[in-house]
Formats: sequence, structure tokens, C-alpha cells
Amino acid sequence: MAVPPSTHPRRLLPLFLGLFQGTLLLFFALFVTYDEPSAQAEDTSLVANQVYSTFPFFQDIQVMLVVGLGLLLTFLPRYGFSALTHIFLLLNFSMQWALVLQGLLHHFHQGQIHLDLHKLLLSVFAAVTVLISVGAILGRASPCQLLIMATCEIPLYLATEWVIVTCLGVQDVGGTITIHVFSCYFGLGVSKTLFRATQQPLHPKETPTTSSDLMSLVGTLILWVFWPSFVAVLCQPGDAQHRAILNTLLAMSASAITTVVASSLLDRDGKLSPGHLQNGSLAGGVAIGVLADMAVPPAASLALGSLSAVLCVLGFRFLTPSWALHLCMGPGHSA
Amino acid sequence: MAVPPSTHPRRLLPLFLGLFQGTLLLFFALFVTYDEPSAQAEDTSLVANQVYSTFPFFQDIQVMLVVGLGLLLTFLPRYGFSALTHIFLLLNFSMQWALVLQGLLHHFHQGQIHLDLHKLLLSVFAAVTVLISVGAILGRASPCQLLIMATCEIPLYLATEWVIVTCLGVQDVGGTITIHVFSCYFGLGVSKTLFRATQQPLHPKETPTTSSDLMSLVGTLILWVFWPSFVAVLCQPGDAQHRAILNTLLAMSASAITTVVASSLLDRDGKLSPGHLQNGSLAGGVAIGVLADMAVPPAASLALGSLSAVLCVLGFRFLTPSWALHLCMGPGHSA
Amino acid sequence: MAVPPSTHPRRLLPLFLGLFQGTLLLFFALFVTYDEPSAQAEDTSLVANQVYSTFPFFQDIQVMLVVGLGLLLTFLPRYGFSALTHIFLLLNFSMQWALVLQGLLHHFHQGQIHLDLHKLLLSVFAAVTVLISVGAILGRASPCQLLIMATCEIPLYLATEWVIVTCLGVQDVGGTITIHVFSCYFGLGVSKTLFRATQQPLHPKETPTTSSDLMSLVGTLILWVFWPSFVAVLCQPGDAQHRAILNTLLAMSASAITTVVASSLLDRDGKLSPGHLQNGSLAGGVAIGVLADMAVPPAASLALGSLSAVLCVLGFRFLTPSWALHLCMGPGHSA
Repeated sequence: MAVPPSTHPRRLLPLFLGLFQGTLLLFFALFVTYDEPSAQAEDTSLVANQVYSTFPFFQDIQVMLVVGLGLLLTFLPRYGFSALTHIFLLLNFSMQWALVLQGLLHHFHQGQIHLDLHKLLLSVFAAVTVLISVGAILGRASPCQLLIMATCEIPLYLATEWVIVTCLGVQDVGGTITIHVFSCYFGLGVSKTLFRATQQPLHPKETPTTSSDLMSLVGTLILWVFWPSFVAVLCQPGDAQHRAILNTLLAMSASAITTVVASSLLDRDGKLSPGHLQNGSLAGGVAIGVLADMAVPPAASLALGSLSAVLCVLGFRFLTPSWALHLCMGPGHSA
Repeated sequence: MAVPPSTHPRRLLPLFLGLFQGTLLLFFALFVTYDEPSAQAEDTSLVANQVYSTFPFFQDIQVMLVVGLGLLLTFLPRYGFSALTHIFLLLNFSMQWALVLQGLLHHFHQGQIHLDLHKLLLSVFAAVTVLISVGAILGRASPCQLLIMATCEIPLYLATEWVIVTCLGVQDVGGTITIHVFSCYFGLGVSKTLFRATQQPLHPKETPTTSSDLMSLVGTLILWVFWPSFVAVLCQPGDAQHRAILNTLLAMSASAITTVVASSLLDRDGKLSPGHLQNGSLAGGVAIGVLADMAVPPAASLALGSLSAVLCVLGFRFLTPSWALHLCMGPGHSA
Repeated sequence: MAVPPSTHPRRLLPLFLGLFQGTLLLFFALFVTYDEPSAQAEDTSLVANQVYSTFPFFQDIQVMLVVGLGLLLTFLPRYGFSALTHIFLLLNFSMQWALVLQGLLHHFHQGQIHLDLHKLLLSVFAAVTVLISVGAILGRASPCQLLIMATCEIPLYLATEWVIVTCLGVQDVGGTITIHVFSCYFGLGVSKTLFRATQQPLHPKETPTTSSDLMSLVGTLILWVFWPSFVAVLCQPGDAQHRAILNTLLAMSASAITTVVASSLLDRDGKLSPGHLQNGSLAGGVAIGVLADMAVPPAASLALGSLSAVLCVLGFRFLTPSWALHLCMGPGHSA
């Protein structure tokens, strides 16, 4: 894995990561425990049932992040392997870091944190903010810079989420505001700070090829397919979750078609742009997060999906790539 | 995305698609609604339970169609990106179109259509017919031609399904007859009409490469893995669904092994042909659809899987590719 | 598919496989049956419920083996297609063969074997041993040699499992000992026997390329994501299964981070090695199998994950590749 040239010593990455994993291990040994085992093994209590309804969603989300988002970011042919590796490392690091912070903030009772699948899921959601922000600097920052960004972003996200959801009482099941908007501005800020001077020209090896575009599109499609699981997993079981699934499916389907319309209209020859397709198709899923579980009419989901796709494609065409990326508020690249 | 040379104006595609999405939005606003929200959020009624048993199957089927079938059709190296895009567009278009037509035909009560996951699933099944038919003309037809084909095929499919299932009372849980046989003849007909004159020679860029063959095989394997979900999802919950899963697993396993036997016997050097492998392995899944949920002995599933693989490979070898494709009645390519 | 040069007649493979599938068909016709259908279709008895809790895990495991392990083994660019094909063939062959043997050994009542999803799952677990062992000789052995290895390994595995689990009463839910350790020594033995003389130099076409390394990493990540399903599927439903999922998630996350630390420390330039990453990340999943469902503290899972990753990377660096492969006791390659 080619580490981009930078001035930091080579040993910083393993030192930092090793220290982190060691401290975490100590923290877990002292404070983290599982729920007491229930009386008998065959127990199918509420907690157990919750595991069975959550776990398939959890796996869908892991596939989205590790495989889907990883492949989406392989559009730079020679950076593909590093992109996959960095996403994988950042997911694991941020998830563990969020697990500790969330445990200390919300779940610390009588000197212990009781770990369950739901708390792991919340940590994965926190890690998603990092994975989105990273899209703005991936390929230009060293692994160490990425890890430092993650270290700072997780506590800031938890604070923002607390303000938005707990203090202001905003409904945000799909994490549209807390996750997508927050992480887009954070990523933009980091990008401005690190690479202030100019929008650097793309390194020659950063030109997408046919094959890397194909893999990137496969990643997009994996995200598209599993997005309903991401939006619905934290909804109330029953009708609300059912509605969240349906609303997300409708919004994403409208997004996909509207993206083709908009992208084709904007191009002189009526051709589709891979960049439009990859970002526009997911725009509906990002936008629907705010109201996915509410009892809005189905037409509203379709309209929201279409609208967000149009805005995303227009942003891509008429703003600079980096702003467009952030208008779309989602993972994507600025080809 | 290189649009094949054709005489239609460049603006036809966005115009047609935009008009479609707009009309659909209007239709949804006027007639489509969700079920009334149940009394309380924590409700775990029968409807909710149905969502939880259907949703994992639904996601499996989406992966099959969007990722699996898309990759399967990337065997032409320079057409791969377009193949993925077209499949994605057609799935969304056909699904929405089928949702409207099915709603008007079957679910229109008191001026309203109550949308739920089951109805979305039925629309996806209808869209599958389009995705299979498209295999016969993909790479030779423009996006507009593909959309027009989808527009005509969906109502024809719904009519055929009504005749076969409702009037004739034929059992067809896996959609073998209504989906696979119907769509194969439809695709064949469209192919003959559009490209009547001669079997055009393959464009030079249409020669499969090592890398495109690999991705295409990955697509086949994704279809193979998730096929039991496709066959079982519409069965009665309980024993019938259990049997459908087992029968499909057995048939597809027998197909896989028999394909290797048949393909290896037919080749002078005992080598396997990628085309045989890709089509033969799925033949068992197509064939088992007719009787998957019946209480047939397990040996019958194995036998049916083997038989269909042999027929598929023989068809590939001794008929012209396009007929062989249709004998196999499934998605596949004529390499 | 290029069959490696060997002295066996070309017709041996289809003959052997055809005979096998025919005999199996006869065996199924005579002895294998489904459970009696329950009184009514809408039945949601315990058996049916078991299907619904097992089937999503089952599908995850199929994806791991067919797509994940298949892609992992495509790291040799020109052998990629054959690797996928051989894994696919071996999974089907071994699964059916194990189904027969396990049926005869454990489930033969009144002249009949009652087939259900659980028994199919146990056969898939037996097939996993073959898929792991095969990593040691893949690319050097002919398909026939692979099949003969599978034919011998399955009964030996069943005997070993019987001794370890039934006689010695060892807990081993994730199959760490019975599957991973057994299959690693079996594969090593076969490799020594077949290629006794020397460690053959790699054929020139066996040099990994950027693109094949990428696909191989995608395979690893698919295995990493679905590993918790593999470890948890055979646990007692309820708390034990919940703990198995959590323990595996923690162990694999620690593995991923520790692998980066260890690999980066060992390299002079602080670069990550693809081989380390691919094997180390999965080492935690292999190791946790022994105690996944026990009520160990969460810190123990983290520690075990880290420890196994360190050992795996050290083994890779300081032992010969083939021994390192087997120290890691898991699927992987010796790049």
C-alpha cells in the first residue's frame, strides 16, 4: 500500500494504533460486560427477539460500509487497494472509539457498561460519519491523518447528535441531519484545512478507467440495495419500520430514474455521466432519512427522491466538484 | 455510456423517462396510500410479522437482480458499465410501472391503492420478466428501445399471469412458466423484430476477456446463492416455504455438478466452457420453480436439476446461441 | 478453464462426477425424504420458526463460501476463473457427499433420512473443511485430484468431529478445532504428499496484479463481514447466540486493527502487506470459534482477536509461506 509522501515518521501509525488498541483492551477489561446470561439457554425473551430482528439489518449495513462504500471509492484505479484498506481500518477504529465514548456518555451504570448488539449498531452509525467525511480527503491524506480526523470527529458527532436529537427533539431516524449533513461539513472543513492553498490537480494515476468505474458502480449498487436497512434499522418495530422501508424504496427508485433524466438532459450528447449516476441514485436515500418513518403519503417520498436527485446532479454540473460532493451530502466522488 | 448509433433524437430518453416519472408522481399523489397506522407503535401484528419474514427475502432478490444479474451481463468488457446501468434503470422503471398496473388491476378499492411490501415484491417479480427478456437484445438496442420494450412487456406479463395462474389454476410459485418461459419468448420475439435480417456478427469490442469473464461468473454465483430466496418468497409460510428452500438448494446443487459433467464431456479437451457453467448452474433453479413447494421427494428435485442442466448445455452446444439462450429460459449470455 | 497438465485421461473428471451424481440420485430416491407435511399450510410450528431463524444465517454462509472465498482465491490473475469454478464445484460435491455420510451415520431411522435445513447446514460445515484444505494445493492440482481429496477428507472430518465433540465433549461452536485445525493439517499433508520434492517456484502467471489483489481483498472483506453468522449459526438460540455474535464482532475488529499494527511494524517502510491484511483480519474469527458462545468477558474476545492477528502476521513473516498459511488455520494465500 503506497503511503502518500508526507513528513511524519513511519512508525507513527503502528504506535498510535497499537496504543489505542491496548488502551481499549484495558478499558474493556475494567468496565465492559455482557448482560447477565438469562436463566436458561432456550430463553427467547424480548432481548433475544430484538437480536433476531436487528441482526439481518446489522449485516446489511456492514456489507454496505465494508464492501459497498469500499468499492465505491476504488474509482481511482491505482488507489483502489488503499481505499478499501483505509475504509476498513477507519470503520473498525471509529466503531471501537465510539463504543467507548457512547458507553461513557449514555450507558455507564454502576461502573459498568452492558454491551449488546444495539449499542454496537449505534457505534457503527457513529463510524459512518467518519467514512463519509473521509471521502473529501481520501487519496490525499496519510493513514495517520485519517485516524486523527476520526479521533476528533467521533466526539464532535456525539455532541452534535445530543444537541439535535435530545435537546432540539428533531426526528432523524435515517441520520440525514446528524450523520450526512454533519459529516459533509466536517469533511469539507478538514479538506480546507489540510489542503488550503489550491484545489490540487488530480495526480495522473487518479484518472478513472473503464474497469475501476465498473467496480465503483458495483459499490454504488450495493449501497443502493441495502440502503433501506440502514434507514429502517433504528425505527420502532412494526408499522413505523415497515413505512421506513417502503418510503426509502420509493425515494431511491425515484432518485435512480430522475438521475438518468437530469444527467441525460445536461449532457450535450445525451450521455449519462458515471459521477451523476453514482451520487444521484443515492441522494434519495440520504434525503428520505429525515421523515422515513413518518406517515407521509407515498407520493411525498417519490417527490423527495426526485427532487434530491435533481439537486444533486445540478450541483455536480454547476458547482465545483468538491461543493457538489457536499451538496449531495453523501458518499461519492467528484469525477 | 456509449449510446448505440440509432436514428432517434437524443432528447427522447429524458423526455420519455421524465414524463413517466411525473405521471407516476401524480398517480401516487391521487390514488396511493399506506395502510392506516396501527394503534400503537410497538404493535407486532400479523402484518408487521409478515414484513419481518418477507424483508430478508426481498433484499436477497434485490441483490440478485441489481448486483448479480448486472455483473452477469458485464461479460462484454467495454459494454460492462452500460449493462449495469441499463439493468438498474430497467428494474426501477419496470417495477414502478408494474406497481401502477397491478394496483389498478388487483388492488383498487374505494379509489385507493394500499401499498405494502408484498405489493412492491410482486412488482419486482414483474420487473424480472423485463430483465430476462432484455438479455436477448442488450448491447444492440438503445436505452429508449429497452424502455419501450419494458412498457409493452409489463401489461402483457400481467395478462399472461392472470390467464395462467387465475384462469387455468396452474401452480407456479417460482415463476418458471409465467416469468421465465414468458419472458424468454417475449425477448426472442423482440430480438427477431428489431434485428430481423441476420444474426449480426459480434462487434470486435464484444469479445469477452479474462477479467470480464471473471466478473460475469461472480454475478452468476450471486444469482446461484440467492436463488432459493427468489423461489421461496411467495410460498405459504411454514412447511411449504421450508420445502421450497430445500428443493431449490438440491436442484441447484445437482445442476452445478451436472453442468461440469456435461460441459466437460462435450469439449474435445475436457475443458469447461464459461458459457455452459453460467447458464447450466442456474437451469435447475429455473426448472424447480414449477413444483418447489410441493411435497415431491427430494430425489425428484435432484433429478430435475440434473436434467435441466443437461438440456441447457446440450442446447448451448447444438442449437444456435440465441435459441440455446432461450431453451435455458434464464438470464445468460451466448458466448 | 485451463486444466493443469497432468497424466490422467481427460475423461476421468466427467466420469467420476457423473457416476457420483447418479449414485447420489439413487441413494436419495431410496432413502431420503422430507418431514411429513404438517396438518395445515399456515402452520408456524417450532420447526418452521427454526427455518426462519436459520435461513438468513445459511444464506450469509453461502455468500461467504461461494463469493467471498472464491474471490479471495482469485489473487493469481490468470487462475482466477478456475479458482472460482473449483471452489464452486468442490462446495457442491462435498456438501452432497457429506449429506449422504452424515445421513447414514447420524440420521438413519427406520430406513429413512429426514432432510431439513439444519442437516443441509451441517453438510455445508463439513464442506468448509475441504474448501480450506484446498487452499494449500489450489492452482497446482487438477480438478480430479481436488475431488479425490474431497472424497477422502469428508469421512475423515466426520470421524474427527465425532471423536472431538462427542467423545471428548469439547465445546467448539465455531468449528475452530474440528474445522480449521483439522483442515489445515489435512491440506498440509496432501500438499506434502502431492508435491513432495520441493516447494515449486511460482509459475510466472501466478504473480498477483493490482486488479487481482483488489478482488482478493473484496473476497476477504465479504468473509470478514459474514463471519459472525458462521460462528453463531449453530449456537443455542437466545443469549448464547447473541453472545457469539458480539464476541465474534469484537474479536474480528481487534484482529483488523492489530493486523495493521503488526504488519506496519514488520515492514521497513511501514507499508501494509496485502497477504498480512487478508489473513490477519480473519484470524480473530477463526480463534474465537472455540469460546464464542461462552460467557467470557468482552475484553477476552478483544484480546484473543489481537493475539491471533499478531501470531498470524508473525507466522507469515518468519516461517515459510506454507507453514504460515497453516498457522493462521484459515483460508488465505501465501503471497
